[in-house]
Amino acid sequence: MAEPAGSSIDVPRAVRWHDDAVRIIDQTLLPSEYREIDLVEVDEVIEAIRSLRVRGAPAIGIAGAMGLVASLEKHVAGPGSAFRARLAEAAEAIRSARPTAANLAWAVDRVAALADRMSAATNAEVWEAMRREATAILDEDREMCRHIGEHGLTLLHDGSTVLTHCNAGALATGGIGTALAPIYLAAQRGMNVRVLAGETRPLLQGSRLTAWELSRAGVDVTVLTDSAAAAAMARLGVDIVIVGADRIAANGDVANKIGTYGLAIATRHHGLPFYVAAPSSTFDLGLASGAEIPIEERAADEVLRGFGRPTAPDGVAVFGAAFDVTPAELVTGFITERGILRAGEIGELRVR
Amino acid sequence: MAEPAGSSIDVPRAVRWHDDAVRIIDQTLLPSEYREIDLVEVDEVIEAIRSLRVRGAPAIGIAGAMGLVASLEKHVAGPGSAFRARLAEAAEAIRSARPTAANLAWAVDRVAALADRMSAATNAEVWEAMRREATAILDEDREMCRHIGEHGLTLLHDGSTVLTHCNAGALATGGIGTALAPIYLAAQRGMNVRVLAGETRPLLQGSRLTAWELSRAGVDVTVLTDSAAAAAMARLGVDIVIVGADRIAANGDVANKIGTYGLAIATRHHGLPFYVAAPSSTFDLGLASGAEIPIEERAADEVLRGFGRPTAPDGVAVFGAAFDVTPAELVTGFITERGILRAGEIGELRVR
Repeated sequence: MAEPAGSSIDVPRAVRWHDDAVRIIDQTLLPSEYREIDLVEVDEVIEAIRSLRVRGAPAIGIAGAMGLVASLEKHVAGPGSAFRARLAEAAEAIRSARPTAANLAWAVDRVAALADRMSAATNAEVWEAMRREATAILDEDREMCRHIGEHGLTLLHDGSTVLTHCNAGALATGGIGTALAPIYLAAQRGMNVRVLAGETRPLLQGSRLTAWELSRAGVDVTVLTDSAAAAAMARLGVDIVIVGADRIAANGDVANKIGTYGLAIATRHHGLPFYVAAPSSTFDLGLASGAEIPIEERAADEVLRGFGRPTAPDGVAVFGAAFDVTPAELVTGFITERGILRAGEIGELRVR
Repeated sequence: MAEPAGSSIDVPRAVRWHDDAVRIIDQTLLPSEYREIDLVEVDEVIEAIRSLRVRGAPAIGIAGAMGLVASLEKHVAGPGSAFRARLAEAAEAIRSARPTAANLAWAVDRVAALADRMSAATNAEVWEAMRREATAILDEDREMCRHIGEHGLTLLHDGSTVLTHCNAGALATGGIGTALAPIYLAAQRGMNVRVLAGETRPLLQGSRLTAWELSRAGVDVTVLTDSAAAAAMARLGVDIVIVGADRIAANGDVANKIGTYGLAIATRHHGLPFYVAAPSSTFDLGLASGAEIPIEERAADEVLRGFGRPTAPDGVAVFGAAFDVTPAELVTGFITERGILRAGEIGELRVR
């Protein structure tokens, strides 16, 4: 069927260049306020990543790589040894800002590695090459999102109801998202797709961000508490669950936002398909299984007073894991830019 | 083993008489503020129940029965026909304040039915009898909580980790709770029991109320987002899941706070026991299955701006079911005041 002419997808741009600064949308303020901020210093980049002003594994990777470049511009005029020392220091600091996302270390390392390969080059030459590389990561991510969308679209039909968790949309990437990419493409082609967005406690990326970006694009979206997902499957008719990922081990175990594992269990219980959408940079083939993935524990206050008001008695203990690990056997398939893979086919990603 | 002398359980009293008014703890203010309020008028009683100032199926039943009595006192001096008309009207209004809780209709009907049996009595005689009946419901509930606790205690051991959802504690009953009763008795007997309390979105009864009442009683309690329950089972070591219930059908299907169903699925996936603690008044043997239980849908704002700040874009759709239905096959057993029953044994509750 021919694609309707002229239909386009209006999605926000989570990360982009603004001159030589990294311009991001401050996602902590959404949906109440839309504000863009520019990052230049290493500390600004790390703060923005740690505070989740920019978040989502692909977007963090892009922002980290671009932020490394932005922070180095002022050092180009200095001596080469200082430039390279500063580069190594900044790369190390940025890549460890968040431990679970695979893309952050991957993207920072990819940009930083250029300097090693250009040992005879001037600072300016190295910096220009790094800027091109960071831009390439952004451009490739946009392209990957579209490919993920095309592959994922084969799993949807007119009238599909898709349940998702957290935000693996445009706000999490350089393009149209990972888990949400098939939904945007479906909408662009005039298909009716309904999305159920789990609110995603504690920081509500589902209700604050997924509902925001989908509703502004005209997609039919319904918010539910995370705990209502199983009831939604029983009562509302869910066709497919699609989520993103922060890191995927070689065996197909998936680290993603806390709640993904319980959702995968409920999906299996209802006999529904559970897909993980992620670019190949999210696969960490150096890790045999999910047991090796570092799981970030975040501040108790995210659970206990996330909205400026105490939601639990003072001093109570909190289990504050930000991510969980979904075993590969609960995952129907992985929607990557190179096609839909089963867990046993992940090794094929080694051939780039 | 002998019970240590002198250890007592310090639990809040959710509902009690204060002169002829119904004194409740305003649970919407916890944990920030402890405030008691007195209810006399029908509208006050209904508002307190609808706004969840008093909540939990047993406590709602007690407050409804006592509230009916309190509201009628000023009519005792009037003509008998007006008193009885007012009684019927008030009973009907209060019993429909919340549709899912079985105990509310049960308790209100039990008190109201006295008037029918006392057709020749004076208003004062009827009112006094009703007040005694409402007090009996409160006293019996306290006793039932203790019996539920004793039966449930047989499922715990020193060092047990119990995961619970919502609040089925002292704040939900006239006594030491249902799901939390075994935990209080264990604590009283010097056993170490750790409780994991799901926060229970959208109104956070777990983090606001369960964590509050357990921590003030000295019980080791850890709060987690509802979506972290499956990860807690995988990583923290959970021995047993115990929840309360709002209504239980004859076949053992359980209506309880939204999230219970997903929790039961995760519990089954991990091969752990899943128990429902409830007095026999929560069983509605007139309903063949959970499909017949009316499920209350609450205001979208509970999900969209529960913390006084928008947590989703304006106008977005919400799936706001306050309860879900857990099929009997996921329930290991029912902890009642008459012992621990399997789903197939629920019919035995007909013999009172």
